[in-house]
Amino acid sequence: MNKKLFSFELLHKQESARAGVFTTPHGDILTPVFAPVGTQATVKAVTPEQLQQTGASLVLANTYHLYLRPGADLIAEHGGLHNFMQWSGPMLTDSGGFQVFSLSAIRKVDDEGVTFKSHIDGSMHRLTPELSVAVQEKLGADIIMAFDECAVPDDLEYNRRSMARTHAWLERCVTARTRADQALFGIVQGGIFPELRRESAQFVSSLDLPGVAIGGLSVGETKEQMHDILEVVDPLLPQDKPRYLMGVGSPEDLINGVMRGVDIFDCVLPTRLARHQAAFTQTGRVNLMNSINTRSFAPIDEGCQCYTCRNFTRAYLRHLIIAKEMLASTLISIHNIQFLITLMGDARQSILDGTFDTFAAAFLERYQPNHKKEHV
Amino acid sequence: MNKKLFSFELLHKQESARAGVFTTPHGDILTPVFAPVGTQATVKAVTPEQLQQTGASLVLANTYHLYLRPGADLIAEHGGLHNFMQWSGPMLTDSGGFQVFSLSAIRKVDDEGVTFKSHIDGSMHRLTPELSVAVQEKLGADIIMAFDECAVPDDLEYNRRSMARTHAWLERCVTARTRADQALFGIVQGGIFPELRRESAQFVSSLDLPGVAIGGLSVGETKEQMHDILEVVDPLLPQDKPRYLMGVGSPEDLINGVMRGVDIFDCVLPTRLARHQAAFTQTGRVNLMNSINTRSFAPIDEGCQCYTCRNFTRAYLRHLIIAKEMLASTLISIHNIQFLITLMGDARQSILDGTFDTFAAAFLERYQPNHKKEHV
Repeated sequence: MNKKLFSFELLHKQESARAGVFTTPHGDILTPVFAPVGTQATVKAVTPEQLQQTGASLVLANTYHLYLRPGADLIAEHGGLHNFMQWSGPMLTDSGGFQVFSLSAIRKVDDEGVTFKSHIDGSMHRLTPELSVAVQEKLGADIIMAFDECAVPDDLEYNRRSMARTHAWLERCVTARTRADQALFGIVQGGIFPELRRESAQFVSSLDLPGVAIGGLSVGETKEQMHDILEVVDPLLPQDKPRYLMGVGSPEDLINGVMRGVDIFDCVLPTRLARHQAAFTQTGRVNLMNSINTRSFAPIDEGCQCYTCRNFTRAYLRHLIIAKEMLASTLISIHNIQFLITLMGDARQSILDGTFDTFAAAFLERYQPNHKKEHV
Repeated sequence: MNKKLFSFELLHKQESARAGVFTTPHGDILTPVFAPVGTQATVKAVTPEQLQQTGASLVLANTYHLYLRPGADLIAEHGGLHNFMQWSGPMLTDSGGFQVFSLSAIRKVDDEGVTFKSHIDGSMHRLTPELSVAVQEKLGADIIMAFDECAVPDDLEYNRRSMARTHAWLERCVTARTRADQALFGIVQGGIFPELRRESAQFVSSLDLPGVAIGGLSVGETKEQMHDILEVVDPLLPQDKPRYLMGVGSPEDLINGVMRGVDIFDCVLPTRLARHQAAFTQTGRVNLMNSINTRSFAPIDEGCQCYTCRNFTRAYLRHLIIAKEMLASTLISIHNIQFLITLMGDARQSILDGTFDTFAAAFLERYQPNHKKEHV
C-alpha cells in the first residue's frame, strides 16, 4: 500500500467511540461513516448527483453482481466503477464471498475457492481469492475486500475450519494484489464464538493491512451476540486503522457499533426500506402508506434537511405511493440515506465534542427500533 | 383575465412559425415550447429539481387523475399543485375531458356533462364544465383548459353535434371561472373536417380568451390529416394569443406543428418511451436495450447536454436496463425530456434568426421517425 494514497488519522476517542479521517485516492472519508450500497453499480433509484447531495462519501458496489453482470472487463474498459457509474468519491467493493453464500442456491466450497451457480441464469462459476482480487482490481474501487467464507454463525467446529480457510485466503489475497492505489481490508470471522473472534482479530491485525473489517455479523445472531463480539474484537484491532462492520445496518445498530469502536458501516437497508414505503425518523421507522399520513402536511422527519423533507409533505409522498409512482422510491431513498449519513455525522461531532455518551443514550432512548410497532 | 398576470408577445414570425413569450404568474414561457406531463402530480421518474435542469418551463398535470386521486381538496389544502408537487414554474391542467373519453370504460355524455366510471376503482362520477373549472381552480395551475368532448375524428355528424356541445361548454366554463390568476384556454374541435375546424376556430377565437388550444388531434388520424387541420386553423386563430396543440408529441410532430403556427405542445411520449428503453437522437429513436449498445462508450446522443449524456455511456444505461434498475427510467426520461425542450429552444432561436425553414428541413431530413426501424 502506498502510504501517500491511504492514511487513517484517529482524531478523538471517547471510550471506544472513534472520530477519524480515512484518506483515499478519491477523497477523505470522515468516520464514523455510513456507506450506501450500489449493488449493481447504482444506489437504487437515486442518481449520483442526488447521492452526493445526501452527504454520502463512501459508496459500495458488489463484486458478485458486477462479475456476473455486466462483467468486470466492461467496467475496466470504462476506466473502472467510478467512471462507469459516475461516482467521484471513495468506493468500496466487497469480495463476492458473502453473496456466493447468500444468493447462490448451489455452491461448493473447498480450500481453493468456491464453485457456485449464478442466481441470474444458472450458469456455473468459480471464485477464488485470486480471482476476487483480480475482479476487484478491474472494478477499481479505493477499498477492496479479502475473499472470505461467511459461515453460519453458531456452528463452532464449522466456524473453526472456516476461519482458518478465511485466514489462508486472506494471505492469498495479499499475495495476489498488484495495484498500489487500492487498500485491501482483511475480514475478521469466527461466528458468535469469542475465542475464534479473538484469534481472527489477532491474525488479521498482524498483517498490518490499511483497514480491518468485521464480517459474519447481522446474519441471524441476536443483537446481544453482535454487541458481545464487537466488544471482544475492539481492544484487539489496531487503533490506527479503520474498522468496518459489514452489512450493518439500522440506526440503532450504527450507534451501537460506533459505541463499540466501529468506523465504517454499509447496508442496503435505507434504499430497501424506501421501496417498501418505510422511512426513518428520530423516533423510529414510519410507513408512509399508513392512512394517518393522508392529510399530513409534515415532512417525513421534522428537522431533516434532505431534499425530500425540505420540499415534500407526507401527504404528497403517500399519494405517490398509492399512485404507484417511481418518484416515491427515489424521494424516500434520498431521505433514508441522508438520515443515516447525518446520524453518523452527528455522532462524529459528538465524539469530537466529548458528548457521544449523551448523544448515543438520547438517540437509543427516543428511537424505537421495534419494526412491528411502526410509528406514524 | 388580468392583463398584468398574463400576456403574450409575438417576437418574430417566419411564414407560420412563431417565436414568442407567454407571461404567467409563475414565470415566462418562451415559445415554441414542449411541456412535459406530470399526470399524477409527478413527471414520472424525475424530481422537480431534475426537471428544472432539463430546461422545462411549463409542466402539465391531469385533472381527471388528480380529481380521482388524491382529490382536488387535498391539493388545494397544500396551496395548489405548485406547492403539492414542488414545481415553481408555470403549470397547466387539462379539463379531464380527454381522459373521461379515453380511460373510462363506461361513460355517458349528455348536454349537461359526462357520467363516467373511474378506471381506478369503478366508482361513478360526473364531470360538467362547471365542476371541471372548479376542480382546476382548486388545483391552481396557471393555464386551465375548457371542458370539451373529444370525439372520434372521422364521424362528420357526430363531430358536428359534439363541436356544438364543446362550444356551449366553453361558454359555461367562461361563466363558471372565478380566479383572475388563471388563464382559461378554449379548445378547437371538429375532427378531420375542415369546415367544422374553421367554424370552431372562429368561434373559440371570438371569445378573446388568453390562449387557444387545438384538441382532437393525434387521436388516430393520419399525419397528413393532422397537418391539413393545422393549416386550416392557423390563419383563423388570433396572432396575439398562444396556440396549444394538445397531446403532441414526437420530435417530427413538434417541428411540423411549429411550421404550422403552433406555440405549445405537451405529451407523455418522452417519459413513456423512457420506461420502454427508447431514447431520442438527432437521427431517430434508438432502443438502448439493443445489444449493439453492450460495449458502447457513446452517450445516447452526441452533442446532447443533458445530465444523462454528460455522464453516462450507452453501455451503462443498457446495464441498468438489463439489471432492471429504476435509474434507467430516470436517466432516459431526463434525456428524452431535455431532447424535446432543446429541440423547441433551437427551433425558437432559428425563428428569431430567420432560419427556421432550413432548420426544420434539416431536422426532418435527418430524423427517421419510422418506429419500426429503430436506429441503434
